[in-house]
Order: sequence, then C-alpha cells, then structure tokens
Amino acid sequence: MRNFSFVNPVRIEFGRGKEKEIGKYMSEFEAKKAVVLYGSERVRHSGLLGVATDDLKAHGIEFVEVGGVKSNPVLSKVNEVIKIAKDFGADSILAVGGGSVLDSAKAIAAGACYDGDVWDFFTGKEPNKALKIFDIITLAATGSEMNTGGVVTNEQTKQKYAIQAQCLFPKVSVINPELQATVTPEYLVYSASDIIAHSIEGYFTASYHPELIRMQIEANIKMVIKTTEILLANPDDYDARAEFAWAATMALNGFTYLGVEGYSYPNHMIEHAMSAVTDCPHGAGLSVVIPAWMKWYKDKNKTAFERFAREIFGLKTADEGIEALKAWFDKVNTPTTLKQLNIDDKILTEIIEVANHHSKDWGMSDIYTNDAIAEIFSYAR
Amino acid sequence: MRNFSFVNPVRIEFGRGKEKEIGKYMSEFEAKKAVVLYGSERVRHSGLLGVATDDLKAHGIEFVEVGGVKSNPVLSKVNEVIKIAKDFGADSILAVGGGSVLDSAKAIAAGACYDGDVWDFFTGKEPNKALKIFDIITLAATGSEMNTGGVVTNEQTKQKYAIQAQCLFPKVSVINPELQATVTPEYLVYSASDIIAHSIEGYFTASYHPELIRMQIEANIKMVIKTTEILLANPDDYDARAEFAWAATMALNGFTYLGVEGYSYPNHMIEHAMSAVTDCPHGAGLSVVIPAWMKWYKDKNKTAFERFAREIFGLKTADEGIEALKAWFDKVNTPTTLKQLNIDDKILTEIIEVANHHSKDWGMSDIYTNDAIAEIFSYAR
Repeated sequence: MRNFSFVNPVRIEFGRGKEKEIGKYMSEFEAKKAVVLYGSERVRHSGLLGVATDDLKAHGIEFVEVGGVKSNPVLSKVNEVIKIAKDFGADSILAVGGGSVLDSAKAIAAGACYDGDVWDFFTGKEPNKALKIFDIITLAATGSEMNTGGVVTNEQTKQKYAIQAQCLFPKVSVINPELQATVTPEYLVYSASDIIAHSIEGYFTASYHPELIRMQIEANIKMVIKTTEILLANPDDYDARAEFAWAATMALNGFTYLGVEGYSYPNHMIEHAMSAVTDCPHGAGLSVVIPAWMKWYKDKNKTAFERFAREIFGLKTADEGIEALKAWFDKVNTPTTLKQLNIDDKILTEIIEVANHHSKDWGMSDIYTNDAIAEIFSYAR
Repeated sequence: MRNFSFVNPVRIEFGRGKEKEIGKYMSEFEAKKAVVLYGSERVRHSGLLGVATDDLKAHGIEFVEVGGVKSNPVLSKVNEVIKIAKDFGADSILAVGGGSVLDSAKAIAAGACYDGDVWDFFTGKEPNKALKIFDIITLAATGSEMNTGGVVTNEQTKQKYAIQAQCLFPKVSVINPELQATVTPEYLVYSASDIIAHSIEGYFTASYHPELIRMQIEANIKMVIKTTEILLANPDDYDARAEFAWAATMALNGFTYLGVEGYSYPNHMIEHAMSAVTDCPHGAGLSVVIPAWMKWYKDKNKTAFERFAREIFGLKTADEGIEALKAWFDKVNTPTTLKQLNIDDKILTEIIEVANHHSKDWGMSDIYTNDAIAEIFSYAR
C-alpha cells in the first residue's frame, strides 16, 4: 500500500425514520439559520420537506426554503442561492434530494463564506470555510453524502467540474432507504452505473492497487449488480434498497482509494463532457462510456481486467468481462450506445471538443488526446 | 440493514516514515503537554521513541515518558499513570506500542479527566471527557487505533473488561507497517487470530447480518490468511505487512458491524477469562477458543457457518469450515488446545469461574451458563 492520510468525520444516520430527527442532529452542531435546498417539488408533495422543516422548527432553527435544483446542477442556480444564503445570514445548509442537490449545497456552502466568484473553487482554489452541511439523501449514487466533493456545470463555458475540500464534508447525512424506494427504474439503473463507475476508475487505472482494497471494491460491485436486479423486480425490498444505498456510499467515501497510487477518472472526465453538452443523466452517460473506454483501455492493465472478469462474472478474459458488463447494462436497460442518447455526429463533435478541454484542465491530456477520445467514442456507436 | 448511527473521526497517517511527523500531527490538535506511554524498552532501543520525542520537542510539546505497560495491561499501571498525567498537567497522551499500550492510554486519558475511580468506566459509567489520544501502533491486531474501546485487567478481581466512549477515539493514529516488521512469528499469528476473532464474532452470532458487510468481512479474513502466510515466509514483504495492518484496522473500526443486529462477543468473553487467569497472549487464547466455540455453536446459525466454509475455504459444510480454520491455526503455529497453553484441570476450573462472572457482567449468561462454558472448553482438550 502507498502512504496515505485519511479522515472521514461524516456522521451517518442510516435507516427508517431518521429524517424526522434532522432538526435534532443540526442543533447538535449549533445550526441556527439554515438554507433548505431541494430539487423537484416532489419532495414537498411527498411530505418529506414538511417532515424535515417541522423538526427544524421544533429545534428553533430558522430556515429559508429554495427549490429548483436540477439534475446536472448548474452554476447559475448555485450563485442564486449563495446570494439568498448571504442575505439570510445562514450558518448551515440542508440538502434534501439526490447528489445534484447535495453537490449544489456544497458549492453554496463554500460560496456563502467567500467574497469572490465561487467558480474559483472549481478551477484550482480550495475553500477553507463553508456553511455547515447536512443532507437527507433521496437517491443513492454519487456518494456525496460521505465525501468532500461536488460537481457543478458552468453553463456558459460547458465546464462540468468539481469542488473539493475538507470543509465540505457533511456534518450529518441521513440515509433512509425507504425514501429511495420511489426512484424510477431508469434512475435506479443510472445510479447503479454511477456506483460501478466510482468503483472501477481506480481499479483499472491505478499504477499500484492493494489487493484488500480490490476485494472490497469487488464486493461493492457484486452487491450493486445483485440488488439492482432485486429492486427492478421488487422496488419495495427494503434490505436490498439498504444494501444498494450503502454500497453507493462506500464506493466513494475514500476507503476504496486508500493506498492506491496513480489513478484517474477518465470515464467521469468523458461523461462530464457528454452531460455538459446534452444534459443526459450522468449515469446514462457513464453506461455508454464505460464499456467503450474499457475496450480502448484494456491492454494497458490486462491483469486488472482479467481479475474483473473472473471476480465479478466468473469469466476468464478481459474481453469476456467487458462484454458481460455491457450485456448487464443492456439487460437492466441503461444505454450503452451514443444512438440511445440521441447523440449524432454533430453533437459528438461538440462533446469531443468539450472533453478535450476537460482533459487538459484535469491534467489528463497526455493520454486522453483528441484522437484518443474520438477513438473511445467509436466503440460506443 | 438495521438502523444505525455511525461516525469515526480518527485521522489515519499510514505508511513509511509517518512516525517522524507525530509532533506536527499533535500540534495540529494543540497538544502542549503529553504523556508518552510505551511498553517494553525495545521501542527505546530501536530508536522509535527517540524519533517520536524528537518531533515533539521540535513542535514545542512538553512530555513525560512512562514505560512498562505489559501485554494484557493491568489496572494498577493505569492508575499509576493517571496520577503522573494529573501531576504533570497533561492535555494529551501518545501511545507508542501495540494494543495493550493504546488500550491503557485510553483508560488513562479518561481517568486523568475524572476525580473518581477509573474502574467505574469499565463497569457501566461512560466517560465524556478525556485527554487527546494519539498513537504510533507497532503491532496490528486490536484495531484500537480506529475505535473507541480499550481492554484492561483488574488484577485483584480478575475482571478483564472494556472501556468505551466517543471521547476515546484517537485524534491521529500512525500506522507504519515497517515498524511492525520486527514482530515475532508467534505474535504475528496471535495477531492474525485476534483479527479473525474480531471478524467472526458478529458474522456468526448476529440475528440479522447484511450481505455486503459479510462480503467485506470475508475479504478481510481472506487477506489476513494470505498475508500471514506471506509474512511467515518473508517478514520484510512491505505490501503484505501493509495489507495485514490495514485488515486489522478495518476489522474493528465499526464498518463491519454496520446494520448488523443482535450480535455478541462470546469468544472474547471466554478468552478474557483465560488471559485474566493465565496471562496467556490474547490471540493465543482466542485460537484455542474459536474452533471449540464454533463446534459448540454451529447449529445455531448453520447458514453462516456453511457460507464461511464456502467463501473462506472453498468447502461445503459447517464442520469442514471449522476444521479448515483449526487446521490453519495449527499450520501457522498458534495453539488450538488448552494443553498447548499449559492449562490443566485446576486452572480450567478457575477460568470457567471467572468466565461465569464475565458472562453475567456482559449480559450473556442466558446462553453462556457455567455448563455451556465447560462444554465449549471440552472441545479444546
């Protein structure tokens, strides 16, 4: 294992009914004035928003509600809410929703404690101060509930970039699998694709990878595959929903990257260009990119690809493993071709151009040249 | 998965040379006056103590050194150091050694902030204040470096009990696998036995156990078995040493007990009586207890025992799995019979008596009656 420093102070409140205590949890961290951020009005109609704000009231926490965060969250919304948070004098922010809402909340939390342009934090500068972050997570996928990162799209520049800093760890994350039971089959499989992406980026790209960490990643992937199938057949299977949710958290809370050296996030880099240009769901973009990227990349780390084939699918060769994953994506109905996302040649050209910028800004342009990215996409036709 | 609340704020500094920065880490937590606690004088002769205290000096941290903590650490020593810490006005404690030193440090940390008898914290009372705890861990086994617990023996009453509280999380734990390379083969396999024990207690006894957590535990056990064999052949294999060390931490940092319901620690309860009476190494006692307990317990959770046989050893029946684990203990030379620990009938009678008290105090006497404990030991003859 390579040297590492690690800390993850997020408190997880997991299980049925935990959202009812959000005011209590926030008051334990002395929250007094909160922005309550959400996406679609569904969280109001379902009653969840009311349950949360009732407990804020019960604990004397003042709040202002702001909705309208969309999937592939955008910088303009973040800036709008930063102003609201500053005007309100917020000391904390509660995200009620999926990864998009929480990622936006992280950017708002940093921006509300900063006089400059919050986009600075997406392009090199690191925030050292933020509002206290809390969340009730309604979609298991991004792992944002137990890490320091958030992804936002700058609509003007088409950059879909990340903010990351120790001060962006949520104080308390509520994960109640029951709240995730209404996720549509489409978004369930997009989530599965996102969790698998988080699992494999380091697994395949690392120059050094500890075996114990590989085994933990494999456990996670196998559980995602298994529980996705259970949940497609029976959305109300609580235990499957819970294990799926916890696998999502574990896939990107840092533990699966401990002691790993020399890894990168090419699938994310490429997909971020796709969703920045087309606004496709992140997980749908990933399930198109992943098998294509795997075909293109496999010879650079054959051992890992053969291990993947063996451990995840009981197969032998790198190609068999890649085909099995693609076949599984097809089986559960998440797209694996550009055509399924209505991406024609004209759009693809634009995506490749944006990916090129991403590749440079992410420091990956030595491998991910214009030609390389075009070649990867050629496997997704 | 069952509802859970979870937080683990320990910062891990893992890898080569990390011990040289201990003063820096401690100063980040504003440590000013520290007790430096250790066990054998070997840590002085090896130069490790000097390396650590040099960095304390470099960061202006005053300290007092106290050695002489023994394996199966005792209350009298804890009380002695509590007085030293109080007289010195310590705000922190640095443990340099294995689990015994760190466990003692936790008890001292709580006792130094308390006017009463520290044993209160082992018999029902929970401390809410403690010195800041830091450690450089030289033996991978107990997992104490990333949890809230510590075990100490009251020599007078023969109670080997635990202290546990949120305030006992170490602030920073240094794990440099190189420092663990001088561990003797005996203590390496005792450590392996301890890690396996931490892994299986919940695995076999839980009334409900999430599958993802089972898979993570299985990964841990397989890695311990594999790396123990590598290290017995080549003690200087850094990567194996590192994965062994990290498996030890992961086995008892809380993650393998998330969402698990209705579990207990019978192997530890019984072994604590053995080491309280005979002062045998904890891991050696455990490798005697575990196969015996498994034979006695197997029918109460047949599915888990069959799964264990299959996943860990590629075998089928519960009995085959138990025999395979016992055979592995025999192969790596950790004891599996009472005779190997020189425990005769007279000593055994005393152990059973002490275990009986433990069983009552730990709330396990409904299952672990006098007769049951005697029967378990009958499998270890």
